[in-house]
Amino acid sequence: MVRVNPHYSKLQSSYLFSDISQRITKFQEANPDRNIIRLGIGDVTQPLPPACIEAFHKAVDEMATAKDFRGYGPEQGYEFLREAIAENDYRAVGADISPDEIFVSDGAKCDTGNFQELFASDAIIAVPDPVYPVYVDTNVMAGRTGAFVNGRYEGLVYLPSVRENNYVPALPDRQVDVIYLCFPNNPTGATATRAQLSEWVAYARENRALILFDAAYEAFIRDPEIPHSIFEIEGAREVAVEFRSFSKTAGFTGTRCAFAAIPKTCMVYDEAGKPTPLYTLWSRRHTTKFNGVSYPVQRAAAAIYTEEGKRQVRDLSDYYLKNARKIREVISGLGFFCAGGDNSPYIWVQVNCDSWAFFDRLLAGAAVVTTPGSGFGSCGAGYIRISAFNQHEKVEEALERIHKLLK
Amino acid sequence: MVRVNPHYSKLQSSYLFSDISQRITKFQEANPDRNIIRLGIGDVTQPLPPACIEAFHKAVDEMATAKDFRGYGPEQGYEFLREAIAENDYRAVGADISPDEIFVSDGAKCDTGNFQELFASDAIIAVPDPVYPVYVDTNVMAGRTGAFVNGRYEGLVYLPSVRENNYVPALPDRQVDVIYLCFPNNPTGATATRAQLSEWVAYARENRALILFDAAYEAFIRDPEIPHSIFEIEGAREVAVEFRSFSKTAGFTGTRCAFAAIPKTCMVYDEAGKPTPLYTLWSRRHTTKFNGVSYPVQRAAAAIYTEEGKRQVRDLSDYYLKNARKIREVISGLGFFCAGGDNSPYIWVQVNCDSWAFFDRLLAGAAVVTTPGSGFGSCGAGYIRISAFNQHEKVEEALERIHKLLK
Repeated sequence: MVRVNPHYSKLQSSYLFSDISQRITKFQEANPDRNIIRLGIGDVTQPLPPACIEAFHKAVDEMATAKDFRGYGPEQGYEFLREAIAENDYRAVGADISPDEIFVSDGAKCDTGNFQELFASDAIIAVPDPVYPVYVDTNVMAGRTGAFVNGRYEGLVYLPSVRENNYVPALPDRQVDVIYLCFPNNPTGATATRAQLSEWVAYARENRALILFDAAYEAFIRDPEIPHSIFEIEGAREVAVEFRSFSKTAGFTGTRCAFAAIPKTCMVYDEAGKPTPLYTLWSRRHTTKFNGVSYPVQRAAAAIYTEEGKRQVRDLSDYYLKNARKIREVISGLGFFCAGGDNSPYIWVQVNCDSWAFFDRLLAGAAVVTTPGSGFGSCGAGYIRISAFNQHEKVEEALERIHKLLK
Repeated sequence: MVRVNPHYSKLQSSYLFSDISQRITKFQEANPDRNIIRLGIGDVTQPLPPACIEAFHKAVDEMATAKDFRGYGPEQGYEFLREAIAENDYRAVGADISPDEIFVSDGAKCDTGNFQELFASDAIIAVPDPVYPVYVDTNVMAGRTGAFVNGRYEGLVYLPSVRENNYVPALPDRQVDVIYLCFPNNPTGATATRAQLSEWVAYARENRALILFDAAYEAFIRDPEIPHSIFEIEGAREVAVEFRSFSKTAGFTGTRCAFAAIPKTCMVYDEAGKPTPLYTLWSRRHTTKFNGVSYPVQRAAAAIYTEEGKRQVRDLSDYYLKNARKIREVISGLGFFCAGGDNSPYIWVQVNCDSWAFFDRLLAGAAVVTTPGSGFGSCGAGYIRISAFNQHEKVEEALERIHKLLK
């Protein structure tokens, strides 16, 4: 008899965004004439940059001739893309990452979800609270937690990110093995300073722990003091892995391309404390369970590193940051405490009531979709997340409606 | 201290095709003037069909305008593609599969590799021998095997596919929970009859086992008696999942698109024997760890189901089948027993000596790359696999060289 992975039954109902999607459908069915504006899921709305479109077409044309056709590419990604990444995303900010430490993939969601496979099944996992649900759910599926009790999974170490610590968690008061960190943060929009990241790196070095650093929103950093990469921090090469994505940087949510940076000096250990390079394990995993990213997509991604491409993706993040500032301004003006929105496309709003109640109030009263903070964890209760990913006109209209409803 | 998944250390050296790749590099370095012809890895060489190219370009253009731009798509795949698949790949052959039972992905390698996550960690797994290494390695990583001893992993049930059974394994003599089957087979090129598949379905139904049916090479079937899908077999909907790919069908190895068909009536069981639909679990897994296939790629894939697309992909498989027939003819003519090559792009050659020795002999003597059968398992010892994926002229030249070497 084929028996199910028993850990799946611990998972809480469906994925957050599916829940939201169902409420929207229900609302729209009941109110077919209402024009809903979506500031919920962090999905981009602006077209791909022209440089990407041009490179994309050119690569599709290559696939049309026997001479230039490409079959299986390297699972790790083409050299042309890995070199551009290492040069522009790392060496340019003084971070020592080489092209062969880059693994191209089809999404940071996939990478952050799959990475836990490399660790022992009883590894102690620390996640921020609030948290991107993928970090948690994938560890639940792998059996690294107990049951879901009072809003939390037993066995996970939650790191509260709250107003009192500016949404940057304090070091854990116990030994943990793997730590998920995300800056600029989803959902709080908070960023971490160099000093704060240095503390985390020091903790990881002392405890031989590993930091899984999700930098999917790095393109939105404008403050020159905020590090763009964990590898700008001294000592991080031995204890950290970084995940990045073209999704928000270049509008690739529907095009699919991302990467992980895994320094060759970063180690995991066997029971006896003998080190193995994490790089080797991920390479084995990547070549066994993955077959590389679509060639035309890799060409489109590489185009963001040309001179015009760089300008265009900067314009793209500026576009959304203009929304973000406006949202923060209006919502703060209504008397709510806000985090994020300056170096991040998310605004984290303390709503002083139940998250889902406030979500429903905005949906019913303004036909505006947000994301209830409690969907991201216990510490998200009493918050909503507003996303800046939408067209200027729509964001302005949404803000007018919200202002009218709440003023 | 972050400890490694201990099961990775059981894995045998690197992945088969990496080993081959290293031998080729070494040979080419030592013989820079030799023109190597590759009939090893099953990678296509012909360009994408014109219908796919046209649809691909059109979709890239959509991504260039705010009006038609697509962000995150449904993780399960766009309806337009899932409908075309259900209609053309299933209903057209009398198999009852609906669009919402289709899950689009970026590769059958990924799907066949990831699927085992849904099962209990002590599930008894049966694999054919010889076998596509991904089925085995992913179960090793998940801890479902013991050590590698005398060419086999302890705890796995191997199903010999040998000349005596026409490379279609007999039913296991013990209870197993999950059975990987692949027809047309990689590497043997063998196909299974309706009667043989019916026996497997009956076994699975009696034992509440599950068949993971890999039909990645379905497009090469020409014999009208051979089923294209496991779902042409009565009763399969309760006990089977099917994996397909656009890689070999439409030349998508570098473009990346595939799918799994999971009937809603197919169940897995908890310890007490209570059933859960496998569909629900895979849906949870897919939405948590995957973010959908690139939109332009899905459009390119859907184009193979248009009238012209169907003609073009038929021409494409005919092209490689012409190679396959020729290879089988010449190699048989040299006195070697061959399987496959009629309804499959692979020819499985009994070489009456060590696989790697024969591989090296063809490489050194004819500069032709094949795949040593022993790389696919114990029962592959004494065989090589020749792939028909190459241009006609190159295959002819390779055969001339081999003929000259071995005649």
